[in-house]
Parts: sequence; C-alpha cells; structure tokens
Amino acid sequence: MLEQRIRHTGLRSRIVSAEEAQQWVKDGMTIAVSGFTKSGDAKAVLQALAKRVEQTGDKLRINLYSGASLGETDTILCEQQIIARRLPYQSEPRLRKSINLGEVQYTDQHLSHTAELLRSGCLGDIDLAIIEATAITETGGIIPTSSVGNSPIFVERAKRVIVEINLNTPIEFEGLHDIYLPKDRPNRLPIPITKVSDRIGTPDIPCNPDKIIGIVLSRHTDTPSNIVPADRDTQRMAEYILDFFEHEVRHGRLPHNLAPLQSGVGSVSNAVLSGLCNAPFENLEIYTEVMQDAVFELFQSGKVAFASASSFTLSKSMTEHVNASLSKYREKIILRPQEISNHPEVVRRLGVIAINTALEVDIYGNVNSTHVSGTHMMNGIGGSGDFARNAALTIFVTKSIAKDGRISSIVPFVTHVDHSEHDVDIVVTEQGIADLRGLAPRERATVMIEKLAHPFYKDELLYYFNRALTYGGHTPHILEEALSWHKRFADTGDMRQF
Amino acid sequence: MLEQRIRHTGLRSRIVSAEEAQQWVKDGMTIAVSGFTKSGDAKAVLQALAKRVEQTGDKLRINLYSGASLGETDTILCEQQIIARRLPYQSEPRLRKSINLGEVQYTDQHLSHTAELLRSGCLGDIDLAIIEATAITETGGIIPTSSVGNSPIFVERAKRVIVEINLNTPIEFEGLHDIYLPKDRPNRLPIPITKVSDRIGTPDIPCNPDKIIGIVLSRHTDTPSNIVPADRDTQRMAEYILDFFEHEVRHGRLPHNLAPLQSGVGSVSNAVLSGLCNAPFENLEIYTEVMQDAVFELFQSGKVAFASASSFTLSKSMTEHVNASLSKYREKIILRPQEISNHPEVVRRLGVIAINTALEVDIYGNVNSTHVSGTHMMNGIGGSGDFARNAALTIFVTKSIAKDGRISSIVPFVTHVDHSEHDVDIVVTEQGIADLRGLAPRERATVMIEKLAHPFYKDELLYYFNRALTYGGHTPHILEEALSWHKRFADTGDMRQF
Ligand SMILES: CC(C)(COP(=O)(O)OP(=O)(O)OC[C@H]1O[C@@H](n2cnc3c(N)ncnc32)[C@H](O)[C@@H]1OP(=O)(O)O)[C@@H](O)C(=O)NCCC(=O)NCCS
Ligand SMILES: CC(C)(COP(=O)(O)OP(=O)(O)OC[C@H]1O[C@@H](n2cnc3c(N)ncnc32)[C@H](O)[C@@H]1OP(=O)(O)O)[C@@H](O)C(=O)NCCC(=O)NCCS
Repeated sequence: MLEQRIRHTGLRSRIVSAEEAQQWVKDGMTIAVSGFTKSGDAKAVLQALAKRVEQTGDKLRINLYSGASLGETDTILCEQQIIARRLPYQSEPRLRKSINLGEVQYTDQHLSHTAELLRSGCLGDIDLAIIEATAITETGGIIPTSSVGNSPIFVERAKRVIVEINLNTPIEFEGLHDIYLPKDRPNRLPIPITKVSDRIGTPDIPCNPDKIIGIVLSRHTDTPSNIVPADRDTQRMAEYILDFFEHEVRHGRLPHNLAPLQSGVGSVSNAVLSGLCNAPFENLEIYTEVMQDAVFELFQSGKVAFASASSFTLSKSMTEHVNASLSKYREKIILRPQEISNHPEVVRRLGVIAINTALEVDIYGNVNSTHVSGTHMMNGIGGSGDFARNAALTIFVTKSIAKDGRISSIVPFVTHVDHSEHDVDIVVTEQGIADLRGLAPRERATVMIEKLAHPFYKDELLYYFNRALTYGGHTPHILEEALSWHKRFADTGDMRQF
Repeated sequence: MLEQRIRHTGLRSRIVSAEEAQQWVKDGMTIAVSGFTKSGDAKAVLQALAKRVEQTGDKLRINLYSGASLGETDTILCEQQIIARRLPYQSEPRLRKSINLGEVQYTDQHLSHTAELLRSGCLGDIDLAIIEATAITETGGIIPTSSVGNSPIFVERAKRVIVEINLNTPIEFEGLHDIYLPKDRPNRLPIPITKVSDRIGTPDIPCNPDKIIGIVLSRHTDTPSNIVPADRDTQRMAEYILDFFEHEVRHGRLPHNLAPLQSGVGSVSNAVLSGLCNAPFENLEIYTEVMQDAVFELFQSGKVAFASASSFTLSKSMTEHVNASLSKYREKIILRPQEISNHPEVVRRLGVIAINTALEVDIYGNVNSTHVSGTHMMNGIGGSGDFARNAALTIFVTKSIAKDGRISSIVPFVTHVDHSEHDVDIVVTEQGIADLRGLAPRERATVMIEKLAHPFYKDELLYYFNRALTYGGHTPHILEEALSWHKRFADTGDMRQF
C-alpha cells in the first residue's frame, strides 16, 4: 500500500505526523497550500497547527497563499487568528468577516496571475508549501488529488515542501492531471494547447526530493460542495441562455457544438450546464476552472466530448460516483494548473464562452462581482476576469433582485467594477437577456433596463436614465444620485422608494 | 512610376478619381478604413464624400470603423454629420462633442478586440473597405503606409475594397510591415511570436484583386502629431519611473535590458522613453502599438535593439527623418496588425512593461482613462486595456491635478473604471510613485494618498479614508461622499472645499 503511495524509496523515511509537521510553521512565514474551490486542499497540517494554537495560546500569524478557496481549513485558521494575509481567493463566511474588519489583509487576484506575480518576485518568498497528494512517484514527483490549482508553481518556488498523502483518494487519480509550467522569460514559448483535450505536460508535479521535508498521511475528505438546486429563476435564466445559443447557431455565429464552455461556480452556471443535457447540441467541450456536478451529468447523457479544468467541486454523492469511475473519466478529463486553465492565451485561442455570476450590473453593463455595496468583500474575482476578458462570448448572470426585492441587482451605477463595459457581451436575469454586443452606452442602457430590470425597479431606472440624458455625455449619469440607491438601502434596508 | 506602385497589371485600369470613388459610399453603409492614431488613414475618398455632402446637401449617414483615431477626416466627416456610428477609437474634439451629445453612437473597444468581433459576426458586414497603400503587388496584395491597424481584417471581411495609393509615401515602406491574421476557430494556432523581432507573416495584405473596385491616387499627408514637450512635471514622472526600473534591476526583478516596453500616446510616455536615452539600460526592446518620436531618439542614441508597433505617430520633422531613412530602419522595426501588436497572448508571453495615462485614479488603484466626470468621453480606452491587463508590469501615470489644481486626479472614487484595482501595479504622479503590488486595498489607499496626492488634496483624501475606515469593509467608502468631489467641481468649478 505505502509502496504504491510513496514510490520514491528514500522518501518513505520522512513520514511524520501532522502534529510534528505543524511545528515547522513559524510566525511570519509565507505558507502556500494546495486547494482550489475547497478541493484537494492540504488539510491535516494546518488544522493541527490551529489545534496547537488553540491549546497553547501561541501567537502566530502567517501569510496564506492557495489556488483558490480552501474548505473548512480557512475557517479554522481564521478562528485562531492565524491568517495575517491571504490570497488569491476565499469564500468562507468567517474569513470574509475578518477581511471586512480589516483584520486579514486580502489580496484579491485574477487566478491566472498569482503564478506570474510569484515569478516576478513581488509576492515575496514561499517558506513552505503544503501539498495534498495521491502519491509520490519514483523521482519525487507529486501526483495531486482533486485539484491542481497553484501547486506546481508553489512546489517550484517554495524553499521546503510538506506532502500530505491522502489515503482516501483513489490511486486512479494518477494520469488525470497535466502539469505544465511556462518557462521563465525570455525563454517563454507558446502554450501548445490548440484543443481542449491537448495534454502538454507531465502527470506529476516535478519536485526535487531533497525539498520534501516531511510526508503526512491523512484521511481528511474535501469539504463537499452544496450546490443550491435550480429554482424557477435560475431555470429561466438557463433557458434564456440556451435559446440564445440556438439563435446564434441558426445565424451561423456559433457552430453546432458551440464553443468550449466555461462556467463559474454557483447555481445558475450549474443549471445552464444541466440544461444542456436536453438541448440540441452534441460533442460539447468544457474549458473551465471548476467542474461542478452538471459536467458529469452531461457526460452521463453523452453530450460532452471532453472537459478540462483545474479542480472538481462536487456534491458528496457525485464525488462517490466520480471517484469510483476515474479510470473511465481519465480519457475525457484533464485537470490543469490554474495558470493554464485560466490563461488568456488559451482562452482567447479556443474562443471560450464564459458564463459567470454578477452581484450587480449597472445600466451601461459594468459588472460588480465582488463588493457588496462597494465596500464589503463577498468572495473575490476568482477566474471570472481571466475568462470574461478573453472569451469569445462573455455572459454574466444575476437574479434581478436580491434579499426579497429589497436590493435591485440592476443599478444606475455599480459600487465596484470588476468587469468593465468593454468586456461584457450578454447579461441575463430571470426577466430576460440583453445582448450588448456592438452597442454604444445609451443603447445599452435602454436594452438593459427593458430586458433585465425587475418590475419593482424598472420605472425608477428609466426615470434615472431619462433625467441623466438631460445632463448629456457619452455615458449619462446624475452624479449625486448615482449611488443613492445603495445609500437608501444602507439607511432603510430597502432600495425602493415608498 | 505607376508600374512600381501598381504591379498587378490588371488593376491599373481601375484607377478612378476620389470624386468618382466617393459615389460608391451609400447611406447606411458600414465603411472600414485604414488609419491608426492619425497615421496611414485613408483620406482622399472620405474627404471627397464630405465635400459632396456639403455641396449637395445630401443626407447620408455611415457606420465608420477604423484601426484607431483618424486625422482631420474624422473632423470633416463629423462636421457634415456623416458619421452615425464610430468604433473602436477616436480623439478628435469635434467628433468627441458629437459623441457626448449622443449624435454619434460610439463603441469604445479594446483595440485588439475589433477583429475578433468582426469575425464573430456581431458588428455586421463591411460594405466597403478603404485602405491607404504604398503599392499593390503583382498578386493584388496591399502594402500599407505608416500604420497597419485593422486593415488586414477589413480587407478580408469587406465585400469591396478601394485602395488609395499615396504617392507621397516612400516606396521603401515595403518590407516594413508583417501581416498575420489568426485563423478562424477551431483551426487557430498559437501566434508564433516569441521575440519582439519575429516576423511571422507577409509584407503585404493579401487581397483578391476582384474585390478591388477602384484605385485612387492621392498625395494627402498624415496629420502630424504635436507632442507636447516634456514639462517639469512629466520630466519628474519619467525620473520616478526610471529610478524604479533601476531599483527593480538591482533587486533582480528585471533584467538589465528591462523588458519589452509599451508606452501609450501622450507626453509622459514620450518623456519616459526620451529619458531612457540617458539611462543605464542597453539593448532595449519596444513592443507597443504606436511609435512616437522618442522611439527614434532612442534608436539614434543606440539604446534600442528592436521596435514593434502598429503605427507611427510622429512630428513633422521626425516623419521627414524616418521617411528618408526607412531602408535603414527596416531591419529594426516591424509594423503589425493591431490585433497582434496588442494581443494578450503575445503581451503576456513577452512580459511587457506597460505605461499608460490615466485621467483619474482612486485611492484603491482603480483607473479611469476615458470619462471626464464619469460621463463625458475623452478619447477611448484604446490599447491601454490590452496592455495593462496582460503586461508583466502595469504602470499608470497622471499629473496629480488638472485644470490648475481645480481637479484632483487622485480621488476617493473614480467616476468610471477602465482598469480595475486587479490590473494596476504602479501609479505615478509628479508627487511620487506608488508600488501597489501585492497590497490589500487599505494598504493601497495609504500608499496612494501618501505618495501621489497633490498637497492641495492630501489632507482631504486622508480625512475621507480615515472616516471611511469607521464604516468598515474590505474597501472602505462613504457612499454618499464618494462622488461628491466631482459634484462639487460641477457646481463650483473646483474640487477644493474652501
Ligand atoms: C457573485 C457571487 C457572489 C454570486 O454567488 P451565487 O451564490 O451564485 O449567487 P446568489 O444569488 O446566491 O448570491 C449570493 C449572496 O449575495 C447576495 N446578493 C446577491 N446580489 C446582491 C447585491 N446586488 N447586493 C447585495 N447582495 C447581493 C445574495 O442575497 C446572497 O446572499 P446570502 O448569501 O446572504 O443569501 C459568486 O458568483 C462569486 O463569488 N463570483 C465571483 C467569482 C467568480 O465569478 N468566479 C468564477 C469562476 S469560479
Ligand atoms: C487619458 C488621456 C486622455 C490623457 O491624455 P494626455 O494628453 O496624456 O494628458 P493631459 O494631462 O494633457 O490631459 C488631457 C486633458 O484631460 C484633462 N484632464 C486630465 N485629468 C483630468 C481629470 N481628472 N478630470 C478632468 N479632466 C482631466 C486635462 O486638463 C486635459 O484637458 P485639455 O485638453 O482641456 O487641456 C489619454 O492618455 C488617453 O486618451 N488615454 C486612453 C487611451 C490610451 O491609453 N491609449 C494607450 C495606448 S495608445
């Protein structure tokens, strides 16, 4: 058993307990961990660290870098006030709270950028990388588990590495991953992906065995994703998008198998992909960062030819199905480093269709994906910008209202811009779909309000826009009212004027 | 003479006057023209059209697509109200006015995106392309003049083509250009540029001769660029940037020849490049969209090894120098389609250093490059987003104040976002330089205010930030005050509170 999991004979002697390993983490260190949308995150050592801090009352603060969000480890570390600085993404309520209190310095980054910023030297040194693995190869190579994330660049850059061999992960994970790191400049070459299914790297993360200071055996399971089932609204949004795809195919603007699809986490994205199970498209391809349950439903219905991502984010039951069928899926799936799954070069070359969720959109098509009321961080930009900016077709979805109608997600002026008007093609709410391609701002506003706004807010949006027109300008606004809806919500708990 | 300019014998019979050619332009057509930052724009036919409209009172409105800004042709057409829709960039006061009045529908686009949007079919058909040329080859290929811009995609997509052979352009332009169009998907391949100097295409724009319905001989000259000479402030900004480069080289974060430089139009960019003439860097490379005078000063001082762009924007005297020395410069210069000069794939691969100008920047690093007071279009985003988003190092410059201090260019909240906080590394004013890399928003605000704000506004910015902190959040703001500085300027003509 262990021979299979640790094939490099010299490394078998480095097995330590999580409790021993956590002692290598010192105050002020930068720790880089595997993990992407709660999958494949290194759990054992950091949770043991949190326990130590809780028990001893030690004061210890670290910079924590990851692929994307970790599971409960983010929460546990945050409760012990261990995280001083965090990047590039998170989605845990407890951590979010600390970020918004200014207790944790959070650098919200495009997920394809972190590797580059590490290379450039401006994120400092990585003292220790902790990587969850299925196995270690004969040469010390690390086989990841359910995500690749930033692990390859972390292993390359870290001074020392701890590997957490997760004995609960099926050994069949080996061969699923495709590890490729662009060379340092000026020797960088084109990334040779021209098809979603192209394998361009190695199945393992190359690692000098001397760097591996300890191996921890663990049996922690990933925090399962709890996908909210589609409701009437998300269902309707999915239908608008599928109708739109059919329309584009009819007009020769999309081929019959569409284009490689990216879809962000969340229930709408999942509903759109589920909807494709019964839509008249075949041989679909997925080029995304996270595979949710729906991707495997599409495989089961024979609709998808190939899927590439950086991680799985699956429900408990789908995890069981996938883990039991890995050898079958290995021919049809690749997990890549997030630098590659999200790389502008590849996204643009393949002509991806990107579907991501907005918190709010303004009447001119500017999108806020991150900041509630412009100030409070929700999760982070994640990969939405990597895809939205470079996709051939960029779609944003959002329900037209939030909090039972007390908030309109279509507003005069967004309180934060993550995706500018230049990057947004299509916006969808449960009210309708707005095609903004080629339109000037005044034209966009008319379509946005007409198609997307909730009846609670439509008249008031029109009233704003029409008065703004009297002030003139390419993008008319009434500056003193632009943010008044958000202010009203802060004061009264409702954006509506009664 | 004409044999050299029109080498395809069959085409010589298609020579017509500009007055004849303008009759092919009909009401409602989409006309696509060569031209990028006032260089190499097709001038003769459209100016003849304007004259006809002026003389006859004909009502005629067209959609006008170009590479980037045209010279006086934009003004002349606008005066006759011929332009119904314009994209992707402009910079003429008369046209700007019509756009801000809502008379011209202007779609402000990333300059690398227009070709893709044409391929996708969402910008409609091109009825007629009008391309300024140095010559036509034996096979009908079109040799551009001082810019390439979008001409290759226009020629490929247009139903019909008019060529304006400009007899004033030196025949030595031939061989300077490198024309490459990515293939349609799914057959698209990596763009094989790995060095600034790589030639990957043909010297001419391939064109089916049957499409060329007319050839006009012209002698119009490009509208010369009038670069504002460096003043004390721009000089100081250039010095901060050059010191920063030296600092990065000392710390091993940049090599001795830096990295391929992109620099936007404008006096600061020009001053930075000029400053490099006396800086301790050698073998510099330029990968940009526009070459201003300073690039040639750098060539003259032996500092630059190679320069790639999509156009020249030169003063009258520098134009004379360059035109007389083209055969010498041809070994060291390439002019490319703007899709390639600005392509995210190449910009990221080469690790470009991007320097562009902001109108205003907020305390968290969000940049407005386009909208005065959030409503009135200045020029457009141009290529700034193509570069800023994908560069290895993204720098924005702006004077800390405008209009004699009545406007602060560092504000609590920008009125429009073209480049989000995720994409901005360094901001420079004449007051100092702020390095935002790796910082969280609250940290950024402190540095921005401290280093960049003008003394007129520093205390008030600090006062805003400190009170915003009491409201909390990842990115603290006071919503009801966020835009109040702009409102105050609108009401009183001054952002300062007296
Ligand atoms: C934008 C994002 C937060 C939406 O999440 P979601 O779960 O799909 O959407 P929901 O509609 O359930 O909204 C989530 C919460 O935001 C609230 N919300 C939605 N719109 C809001 C608005 N305009 N103002 C304030 N709150 C709003 C909802 O009420 C809900 O609150 P709750 O958690 O208290 O119930 C999420 O998609 C995200 O983090 N995106 C950025 C990262 C990304 O796009 N990655 C893509 C690649 S994976
Ligand atoms: C932003 C941009 C307009 C700055 O232009 P510039 O000529 O370098 O800068 P200036 O400081 O001279 O400012 C231009 C005008 O804007 C005004 N201005 C500057 N900051 C301002 C502000 N914050 N609010 C209002 N007006 C402002 C100046 O007063 C000046 O006005 P004037 O023409 O009436 O004198 C210009 O760089 C641009 O259009 N950028 C977007 C496109 C781009 O970056 N392309 C890059 C690739 S080429």
